Amino acid sequence: MTGQPNSTENNLLNFIRELYPLCRSITGEGSRETLRLISRHIPIEIHEVPTGTKVLDWEIPNEWNIRDAFIKNSAGSRIIDFKKLNLHVLNYSSPVNAKMSLEELRPHLFSIPEKPSLVPYRTSYYSENWGFCLSHDQLGTLKEDIYEVLIDSDLKKGSLTYGELLIKGKYEDEVLITTHICHPSLCNDNLSGISVCTFLAASLLEQNNMWSYRFLFIPGTIGAITWLARNEQNVHKIRYGIVTSLLGIDSIFTYKRSRIGTAQIDRIVEYVLSKRSTPFKVVNFIPYGYDERQFCSPGFNLPVGNLTRVSFGEYPEYHTSADNFDLISEKALLDSLNAFRDVIRHIEGDVRYMNQYPKGEPQLGKRGLYDNIGGRNDSKMLQLAFLWVLNYSDGNHSLTEISMLSGMDIDLIKEAAQMLKEKNLIK
Amino acid sequence: MTGQPNSTENNLLNFIRELYPLCRSITGEGSRETLRLISRHIPIEIHEVPTGTKVLDWEIPNEWNIRDAFIKNSAGSRIIDFKKLNLHVLNYSSPVNAKMSLEELRPHLFSIPEKPSLVPYRTSYYSENWGFCLSHDQLGTLKEDIYEVLIDSDLKKGSLTYGELLIKGKYEDEVLITTHICHPSLCNDNLSGISVCTFLAASLLEQNNMWSYRFLFIPGTIGAITWLARNEQNVHKIRYGIVTSLLGIDSIFTYKRSRIGTAQIDRIVEYVLSKRSTPFKVVNFIPYGYDERQFCSPGFNLPVGNLTRVSFGEYPEYHTSADNFDLISEKALLDSLNAFRDVIRHIEGDVRYMNQYPKGEPQLGKRGLYDNIGGRNDSKMLQLAFLWVLNYSDGNHSLTEISMLSGMDIDLIKEAAQMLKEKNLIK
Amino acid sequence: MTGQPNSTENNLLNFIRELYPLCRSITGEGSRETLRLISRHIPIEIHEVPTGTKVLDWEIPNEWNIRDAFIKNSAGSRIIDFKKLNLHVLNYSSPVNAKMSLEELRPHLFSIPEKPSLVPYRTSYYSENWGFCLSHDQLGTLKEDIYEVLIDSDLKKGSLTYGELLIKGKYEDEVLITTHICHPSLCNDNLSGISVCTFLAASLLEQNNMWSYRFLFIPGTIGAITWLARNEQNVHKIRYGIVTSLLGIDSIFTYKRSRIGTAQIDRIVEYVLSKRSTPFKVVNFIPYGYDERQFCSPGFNLPVGNLTRVSFGEYPEYHTSADNFDLISEKALLDSLNAFRDVIRHIEGDVRYMNQYPKGEPQLGKRGLYDNIGGRNDSKMLQLAFLWVLNYSDGNHSLTEISMLSGMDIDLIKEAAQMLKEKNLIK
Repeated sequence: MTGQPNSTENNLLNFIRELYPLCRSITGEGSRETLRLISRHIPIEIHEVPTGTKVLDWEIPNEWNIRDAFIKNSAGSRIIDFKKLNLHVLNYSSPVNAKMSLEELRPHLFSIPEKPSLVPYRTSYYSENWGFCLSHDQLGTLKEDIYEVLIDSDLKKGSLTYGELLIKGKYEDEVLITTHICHPSLCNDNLSGISVCTFLAASLLEQNNMWSYRFLFIPGTIGAITWLARNEQNVHKIRYGIVTSLLGIDSIFTYKRSRIGTAQIDRIVEYVLSKRSTPFKVVNFIPYGYDERQFCSPGFNLPVGNLTRVSFGEYPEYHTSADNFDLISEKALLDSLNAFRDVIRHIEGDVRYMNQYPKGEPQLGKRGLYDNIGGRNDSKMLQLAFLWVLNYSDGNHSLTEISMLSGMDIDLIKEAAQMLKEKNLIK
Repeated sequence: MTGQPNSTENNLLNFIRELYPLCRSITGEGSRETLRLISRHIPIEIHEVPTGTKVLDWEIPNEWNIRDAFIKNSAGSRIIDFKKLNLHVLNYSSPVNAKMSLEELRPHLFSIPEKPSLVPYRTSYYSENWGFCLSHDQLGTLKEDIYEVLIDSDLKKGSLTYGELLIKGKYEDEVLITTHICHPSLCNDNLSGISVCTFLAASLLEQNNMWSYRFLFIPGTIGAITWLARNEQNVHKIRYGIVTSLLGIDSIFTYKRSRIGTAQIDRIVEYVLSKRSTPFKVVNFIPYGYDERQFCSPGFNLPVGNLTRVSFGEYPEYHTSADNFDLISEKALLDSLNAFRDVIRHIEGDVRYMNQYPKGEPQLGKRGLYDNIGGRNDSKMLQLAFLWVLNYSDGNHSLTEISMLSGMDIDLIKEAAQMLKEKNLIK
Repeated sequence: MTGQPNSTENNLLNFIRELYPLCRSITGEGSRETLRLISRHIPIEIHEVPTGTKVLDWEIPNEWNIRDAFIKNSAGSRIIDFKKLNLHVLNYSSPVNAKMSLEELRPHLFSIPEKPSLVPYRTSYYSENWGFCLSHDQLGTLKEDIYEVLIDSDLKKGSLTYGELLIKGKYEDEVLITTHICHPSLCNDNLSGISVCTFLAASLLEQNNMWSYRFLFIPGTIGAITWLARNEQNVHKIRYGIVTSLLGIDSIFTYKRSRIGTAQIDRIVEYVLSKRSTPFKVVNFIPYGYDERQFCSPGFNLPVGNLTRVSFGEYPEYHTSADNFDLISEKALLDSLNAFRDVIRHIEGDVRYMNQYPKGEPQLGKRGLYDNIGGRNDSKMLQLAFLWVLNYSDGNHSLTEISMLSGMDIDLIKEAAQMLKEKNLIK
């Protein structure tokens, strides 16, 4: 993968098309295959953590795999078929192979009366159960009958799988970017996050970075807890972090602040969103949502926010069969990727210099940095950028903060800083 | 007194009816009898501090008592009669028994030209004087005559009297609630405060409390100074405090912040008022008003605010004969009592727990605290409350602060905390 | 100069009339003569700093003097004449005496196409050049011809000149007020600043001051750098500072905060402006503008703001021949002077007392400070001022801060403080 994707190439969307059919869960082959597809683009390391391993207050569960599942009526028709849509099976269902009446079957059928045409996405990771999800409309058509019910799954010792990529930069301190990979055939939640993060990582691999970037592709909750348990000694390196997902809809960005609330990542993401021409929403941390719940638990309290294009759970297609290709677009995915790249442009500028001539202004003219007669419109902004960088390079303000203070573009500020550095005016 | 008053019982108003006729002042039998009537409801301790006792920069004055006072015209009619309305006498008037012309009398007559039909309430505690208050209308009708003037009072060594009730809670730290008891026949200022504080104390006596509650029924200024002088060593125990009065009018609440301005009592009262459906006003501390002037003097600077239903002096009937039963209602008094009880509900929740599993979320499911399948609407809020309490029980946030942060009702937060405590998840 | 100027006397404007004809620059006789005229009003010390002296990162340049300059056409007419308007010469032009074609002359002619009728003010201090400034209209009329071009100037070793006045107060700590003196015939920028600062200093010489006041009349940039270089050891004495100019237009005041942003000078100027009946503007520090650039460079970071009646460069006549007597008025100059005097009234009140009776209110009545009966309208405000001064004289609030908190006039607060001090209630 070289160069940047553009909207006619449909790279982001095409990657989602590849990933869509897999039946992901918090463990199992679906997730493993997902990570294999990601690793074709970026060199992630794939970790396996055995069932029963203690991770913080939790334990790695049995691994779940499923080959087939259906409900057949007495006429032998598959009226519900896992192979047509993997959402039909209650995720983490234990195996079953039985004939039963509608009455016996009914407690195992899940639908959404308020959205009668949609199949819900339901899970039962931590209490053993089996079941099928179907539209409320279809549920209404089911007649008294003897149904053949099969779930060809197993739940046994195995491992939890997650992917990790560290892109080393000039500094050891890290920018953490995570997305969950545990949802089956749902486009916005979470394939959009997987696709954008993959392409974002790919683009960072092509450039020299100030900071080190760590990408995590992990199952929700248990994955974050597992990673935190295994990396507890190194989390102090995380200076900026974003948990992401829900990036495929053409809706406004929502940024949920880190629990700290005024961390540098909060200031940067809010600033970047405020400079875009579209509306956006910023909300304070709440202990509900995605894996920021774990990264921001009080014992870690990391500077990790949550950036999505829609609030958690606040779109009607959320966790239903309607979270499909009708909902997302390459345009929205690409816009999300660009927003992330803009955030990273500001994170990369979040470094501090020291003015070597802090008393009064140094004379720029004698160093060829200043246009003496003035009047050249094209150089005015750069001259102003010199003054901003010199005045605020006091050890307390990064280039990004100078960009925020001055309202001048971070790239111009970086350019001015580079020129001042070459003249040994800042260090 | 058992159970809670309701508006048809008129308990609050009836108590005011009992207290109204007494001629209170900063000392004397009127105040002593007022305290005796209060002690029928709640077990206050009645303190007597002798005349001449030094209290901070002040000294306890002579005790004032009055039996009768009138102005008779030459025809022998009592044209002004203390027995009809005790406001008619300048409070703390020295005795007089004389005949005099209107010209001689006039410097001792006080009225309000702007409110010609009302009798003003006036005092002269610290400079000896005598006088009568009357309506400006009546003043205009007075003719040249020889008037018989009697004030049958004495001003001699005695004591200053105040009432105090300490309701011990689990903690020694205290919530201070004070109201002044020095005004004679005035309903809103200050009988409404006496009545609401009495019933509030009674309800706190019926429940187990986290904090200790100290109620003071004191004469204005000199009473607060006296109590502070005698309790200087213990004021550090006061963690929350409210000076109150003016609680009988159906007007918006006004909260005047403590001098600290951001004390926990300020945050709590402002939050409670903001959650009510009615408008309210919050103002910064000013060194003028009620006894918060003394509690917030710079040498004490206690976290004591002032809660009233109308700003100090900002209602037309203030300090006049119109501050009577036409002005106040049981409904308003009861609403005031409820607002205080709501404040106390939040003060009682202002305790901090420590999450015992602060790294990542503890697994609630395996402890039976979490509904695994989800979908039960009635448990969603409680589950959310678990997450809020766990995430913010970091030693820096009380349950009340968690309630404020989350917007969830303090009772639900307390309930969630109780359940988490039983599972040893918080301590 | 005795007493205060008033608008019919036109003192401020007349002083500008005297100064207007001089050809000022960053060095030379024009500036020296300007300082001599100032010293007729106030006893400034005139400093000379030799060419070549190192000042921070800079060096004092050659001194520039000019006697005559013109462009004559072949008919012998002076079509551009320095003696008619000194703006016609590029300030700091090196000498020239030559005949040349229009084509050769053109690179040395400066006009403003957007303001075709105005002559621009241009300088070339630090890169040797010569040139003439003329209206764009006139430039359009120039024909092919052989022009006689004369600039009778010299640029040689000499010195930089600036004026300084220290008015000693009760305290050694200083209030710094500076204005630039390097602009030739321009009224608002900078003669208005020179005139207002001169009369302000004169009025401060006539009164006893708490703080010491230091006035600087300096050439822009190099003057500030020179003063800072020579006074580096004493800048810590500066507790308040204002760089000023642009005071002659009847436009809204603009205050640009010090780099600190919340310095006492910032609070005071913003408060004073907010109490005036006219709109005003407050902006954060930016490292561009007048000499606050130097005083607020990160190595000094002094509490120095910038007060003008119009933002830097934001009026159409700025740096053109239209910045003349049509633009300014005695009324605006006087209003500026009054605003400065108001700022100084608050700086003078920015001293802290300690309440000697901080526990409870001291009894004012027994000390004759309190009107016992009350009701005297004229004393109410003073009584209130006593309470404010007593309550906030806690070592953390100056009288000016008490004035801001209470909204009471600083003079009343000062008067109350004086009375309390006489009774030993505050120290």
